[in-house]
Amino acid sequence: MLNRLDFQDLTGSVAGWDAKFFLGILGKLRHLVPMTKFSYSLNATDGKARTGVISTPRGEIRTPAFMPVGTAATVKAMMPESVAATGADILLGNTYHLMLRPTAERIERLGGLHKFMNWQKPILTDSGGFQVMSLAGLRKLTEEGVTFSSHIDGSKHKITPERSMEIQRLLGSDIVMCFDECPALPADKKRIEESMRMSMRWAQRSRDAFGDRPGHALFGIMQGGLEEDLRGESAEALRDIEFDGYAVGGLAVGEGQEKMFNCLDYAPDMLPVDKPRYLMGVGKPDDIVGAVARGIDMMDCVLPSRSGRTGQVFTRKGVVNIKNARHADDPRPLDEACACPACSNYSRAYLHHVFRSQEMISGMLLTWHNLRYFQDLMQDMRDAIAEGRFAEFERNFHETRAQGDIEPL
Amino acid sequence: MLNRLDFQDLTGSVAGWDAKFFLGILGKLRHLVPMTKFSYSLNATDGKARTGVISTPRGEIRTPAFMPVGTAATVKAMMPESVAATGADILLGNTYHLMLRPTAERIERLGGLHKFMNWQKPILTDSGGFQVMSLAGLRKLTEEGVTFSSHIDGSKHKITPERSMEIQRLLGSDIVMCFDECPALPADKKRIEESMRMSMRWAQRSRDAFGDRPGHALFGIMQGGLEEDLRGESAEALRDIEFDGYAVGGLAVGEGQEKMFNCLDYAPDMLPVDKPRYLMGVGKPDDIVGAVARGIDMMDCVLPSRSGRTGQVFTRKGVVNIKNARHADDPRPLDEACACPACSNYSRAYLHHVFRSQEMISGMLLTWHNLRYFQDLMQDMRDAIAEGRFAEFERNFHETRAQGDIEPL
Repeated sequence: MLNRLDFQDLTGSVAGWDAKFFLGILGKLRHLVPMTKFSYSLNATDGKARTGVISTPRGEIRTPAFMPVGTAATVKAMMPESVAATGADILLGNTYHLMLRPTAERIERLGGLHKFMNWQKPILTDSGGFQVMSLAGLRKLTEEGVTFSSHIDGSKHKITPERSMEIQRLLGSDIVMCFDECPALPADKKRIEESMRMSMRWAQRSRDAFGDRPGHALFGIMQGGLEEDLRGESAEALRDIEFDGYAVGGLAVGEGQEKMFNCLDYAPDMLPVDKPRYLMGVGKPDDIVGAVARGIDMMDCVLPSRSGRTGQVFTRKGVVNIKNARHADDPRPLDEACACPACSNYSRAYLHHVFRSQEMISGMLLTWHNLRYFQDLMQDMRDAIAEGRFAEFERNFHETRAQGDIEPL
Repeated sequence: MLNRLDFQDLTGSVAGWDAKFFLGILGKLRHLVPMTKFSYSLNATDGKARTGVISTPRGEIRTPAFMPVGTAATVKAMMPESVAATGADILLGNTYHLMLRPTAERIERLGGLHKFMNWQKPILTDSGGFQVMSLAGLRKLTEEGVTFSSHIDGSKHKITPERSMEIQRLLGSDIVMCFDECPALPADKKRIEESMRMSMRWAQRSRDAFGDRPGHALFGIMQGGLEEDLRGESAEALRDIEFDGYAVGGLAVGEGQEKMFNCLDYAPDMLPVDKPRYLMGVGKPDDIVGAVARGIDMMDCVLPSRSGRTGQVFTRKGVVNIKNARHADDPRPLDEACACPACSNYSRAYLHHVFRSQEMISGMLLTWHNLRYFQDLMQDMRDAIAEGRFAEFERNFHETRAQGDIEPL
């Protein structure tokens, strides 16, 4: 296997040959076998903000990266080609949903999640733990794992760290998450401490069960709520185990932006600098910008797709609610600066009409726009960090949003 | 304005010039002004089956043509680019729905229906009459027209032939339909006769109100139920008024395929041979093939799009219901002979999963497939007619469907 650095070394060493011919052969072989290990290259920093590239056999992930959520093997209301067209390098699949329907075993028989859902770029899967806690019925948590009944048909299921690793392997996930437990906030410190320590034992069990899978990555998940000492203890435990990347878990669970940012002021610094850092379940555009400013490299959230289906639209000038009557006669696009199909080809009046008429194209167009807005935001941040002007970017971002939507006609 | 014949005459007359240069200029001008009148060219017949081309300023319509239905300014679950990609040359918009929401006046202010819904090819609009009768509440029918209350908000409205022409003009429809009345079948002959005669008076009023609109067409609608003498009387009345095309109305309203085909055995022959013939609201694939065999050039139906949302799939081997458990583990495509995204990129197992999970991509993919199937069927018929093998096509069509779906694995 060759990563990009190896590849450059190699091209240097064949100067006596016809290097172009050699490269041509390598280029052809590249489509036959995975040539890239999982690796992270940090390309630039600006303050605490970082930009880089995660390389995987299924393609590169430019960071900071936003991952659209494809819960049940589809990003709702989107064709996968369209998700890619928004600029997404990776999407997130939900272990909890997929294990219940159509089941991980069925997806494996059908050739894995990528083939099943026609998405050939990288996929990160969560561990199932968070959604068991938020969706399933009749949960019972023990040191071994969690038993629960399905929210779909009430059937009984069990996830342990070992079973979570198995499910994520059957799905064919590129980035596998450790199975962890995440208490809702606020919670007392004792509860958070006990939960974090069990999650760290589960992290070791996840690492052991994951084994050696070249080209696939396992990420640890830091817990510890809003307690700096517990975050430190969790980070140390994870660093001792060693992972390919590290998530900051247990945030965006109801604590609010201020407390989340307070935690992010120290938590990412506790993690290895040479590995990607993933903030789970975040968030609104200003959450994302604030997280990147604090050293986060990856995020995921259902917000752009869910909001697209409820008529809430993210624009450079803030949030627009397309169902408002002010849009009914408005021939202007949602966001003049956006190149998505909703903004390029349709008026606000049309988008208002199809939303009011409950037409599917409403969810299709608004989800596309929202995902494109989030990806444009990530690209703007990557550029700003690379060019050393992230502070200026942040200022402009907040100022433009503060202007609010364009005036009604 | 120049149609294709005029254009050829012109190129003949400039032989002394640099004709290529001249053509280049014309080609550029073509994008600035509508160069084509509405015209129909009958290219080949095979038995009673016909193939040809309807030319309009917005593009050519290859006949026999199937028109997807875009009721509320969208073909449900489809992007307009995707509708075009299935092979559709024209779509149908519903006057009744659009006049109620967002209103014809609003669409006109926003630049017309084509711009509003981002569909630059031809649009045919119905007159609103049929849907007032099937959807609206509190209808009152008089010689002047029909008053009714909206099924959306109960508001009072009135459509007359003159108002229907005005609405369709405001929408910017390329092919405008006369306002008519269509009694549900079965009905006694007296009722059908009176209704047909009023529709013929309304046809004259529609013609008068439509006026002279170069590049736009007005179609008359034949009525008369299943009574051959009344169909003859209706056809004569319409031919006397003179239209750009003629619809066979009053069928596909509950009479069944056998009675519909009996009527189509004589009704199309009563209409001018040099104008397109449109069978409204048809139908299932075998209805369509039988109608084309009897001399019909255009059809429309919600069936492919509506069925796509309920999991009913049309294939060369008959109807497949994707919700059946037999598909849950099936890695094969819906229809091996189909090149649509649903068949090219997804297994039956995936389509089953997303249907069961009520994911929007289910309706998106199955609608795309169904529309593509209908358009492929039309293309196959156009080719068969042009090559004088329509009878063979019909035999193969029925034999392949009779095989039924592929065996379960």
